[in-house]
Amino acid sequence: MGISAFFRLFQPKDKVFYSLFEQVVDNLASMSKDMVEGMKSRETITEAFYKKMEDYEHANDKLSHNIFIELGKNFITPFDREDIHQLTSALDDIADILFASCKYILLYKSPYIPAYYTFANLIYDCVLELQKAIYNLRNFKKPKEVLASCVEINRIENVADDFFSKEMGDLFESKRDVLDIIKLKNVLEYLEDVTDKCEDSANIIESILVKYS
Amino acid sequence: MGISAFFRLFQPKDKVFYSLFEQVVDNLASMSKDMVEGMKSRETITEAFYKKMEDYEHANDKLSHNIFIELGKNFITPFDREDIHQLTSALDDIADILFASCKYILLYKSPYIPAYYTFANLIYDCVLELQKAIYNLRNFKKPKEVLASCVEINRIENVADDFFSKEMGDLFESKRDVLDIIKLKNVLEYLEDVTDKCEDSANIIESILVKYS
Amino acid sequence: MGISAFFRLFQPKDKVFYSLFEQVVDNLASMSKDMVEGMKSRETITEAFYKKMEDYEHANDKLSHNIFIELGKNFITPFDREDIHQLTSALDDIADILFASCKYILLYKSPYIPAYYTFANLIYDCVLELQKAIYNLRNFKKPKEVLASCVEINRIENVADDFFSKEMGDLFESKRDVLDIIKLKNVLEYLEDVTDKCEDSANIIESILVKYS
Repeated sequence: MGISAFFRLFQPKDKVFYSLFEQVVDNLASMSKDMVEGMKSRETITEAFYKKMEDYEHANDKLSHNIFIELGKNFITPFDREDIHQLTSALDDIADILFASCKYILLYKSPYIPAYYTFANLIYDCVLELQKAIYNLRNFKKPKEVLASCVEINRIENVADDFFSKEMGDLFESKRDVLDIIKLKNVLEYLEDVTDKCEDSANIIESILVKYS
Repeated sequence: MGISAFFRLFQPKDKVFYSLFEQVVDNLASMSKDMVEGMKSRETITEAFYKKMEDYEHANDKLSHNIFIELGKNFITPFDREDIHQLTSALDDIADILFASCKYILLYKSPYIPAYYTFANLIYDCVLELQKAIYNLRNFKKPKEVLASCVEINRIENVADDFFSKEMGDLFESKRDVLDIIKLKNVLEYLEDVTDKCEDSANIIESILVKYS
Repeated sequence: MGISAFFRLFQPKDKVFYSLFEQVVDNLASMSKDMVEGMKSRETITEAFYKKMEDYEHANDKLSHNIFIELGKNFITPFDREDIHQLTSALDDIADILFASCKYILLYKSPYIPAYYTFANLIYDCVLELQKAIYNLRNFKKPKEVLASCVEINRIENVADDFFSKEMGDLFESKRDVLDIIKLKNVLEYLEDVTDKCEDSANIIESILVKYS
């Protein structure tokens, strides 16, 4: 029996879900921190960086799967089964699309633009707030703190949205090669989509809060 | 205490949601009416038009937020909390994407095509039916009328879909500059997406009807 | 009274839903089988092929509509009304996007690439597993078999995802005309999206299983 399985014997069954969601956001936080490092320059977007991002994405898949397995085993859950399912999927989407954005930069041999680094930082900020929100969600004891994080994620998503618009406008004016414009547009869309999925997750957390507090 | 807050004291608590949804579709109706005006020609797509659309979009955000706040305060709701949440999000998507389509025409310095005006009219027609559906949803007293509006929205969405396909086919044959084709394709996709979101809203309304009538 | 209506008198009311979902996946199986035939070469992607795909798509719309009508008539359902609604929509998305991918090849006068045929086969494999999953879902008597199909659909979707990435990378290296690249990219995105919707359907089926077995 692994150490975590051993400790789980001592905690009420429905607490398992809090732990699993905390592991998911911890994984997302490490993933987006390493993304910031990788996006610093064209030189840091390497095969090794790609591989690291893929590992995080697989780790997230595994955790999502564990949550679904626990859903099958536990009759009692801290909040509605549908909400657990939705939140798991939304957080998994973050890992998927974050990985996709990194993958396509390499795969398309996309030119490097500093906007990649700016976006990585915005994503990291969103994920840190998501991490706070999930930790504060435990036992519904800190509803105000959870809500504050959700509001902050919505704010960052608006900043990301404006930044995306500006970059896209500049891109079309850039006199770059059309194929490069297509590649850059595609990666920027993925990056902006990551912040959308963070907002989706925040909205699901907010709606869980509305139901139970 | 504002006048509306004063009047709300006299209506049963769960009626608040009907009023709020009615305000949302009233806002969407004004927004899409002004969109028709703006899309008449290249000259009417101005900064002032953009600003007006942005104001409608913000007004919609505010109303959505009010609905979520009422959800937190009211134990009794006229239909499931999840349905209120979903419908609010779907109607908010309409405002978001409608605004985005106008924004990108300006931002990309997109060429003007008459299809923009045709789409604005199709969207306006959809929104007027949504407005009817939401007003007739009150107290579930007019299920047939609600259903008729939902059917009509589905019909208009099909028309929009066919129109979009035809325009896209023409666009690729147009011998236009490739960058212009990319811009026009992008805006047309947003416009078509608005009618998709109207259909999503109609489908949610229909499923609420199925549950409660 | 039609034969099917006659037989339905003899089965418990809530069994109607199983029959309807079986008809949906049977239709999808025929649709994707014919898609494989059509995608064999540029010559087989004809107006007749387009028409056949459109008929399947309309047949799916009709079946979805019947499910919604039965939802309105039946108080007792084999699983949650929301789940029936979600699964119906997800299966309908498969038919819609599968049809769209075929439509745009013709409409855009897209060049033909063998990847279209490979994708058609991957989609057919996914749909056959969906068909098995739906048939085995009846009365929740074969949960393991249902789960195995869902796992297999997830596996095929991963293969499709990798194949899509590889094709997109190759496409940008291909020295093709930019407009052709845009067309091919667009169709490949639709094809990949079909397998995503198969995975969505599998995930909904899995979550229904989790709730009821």
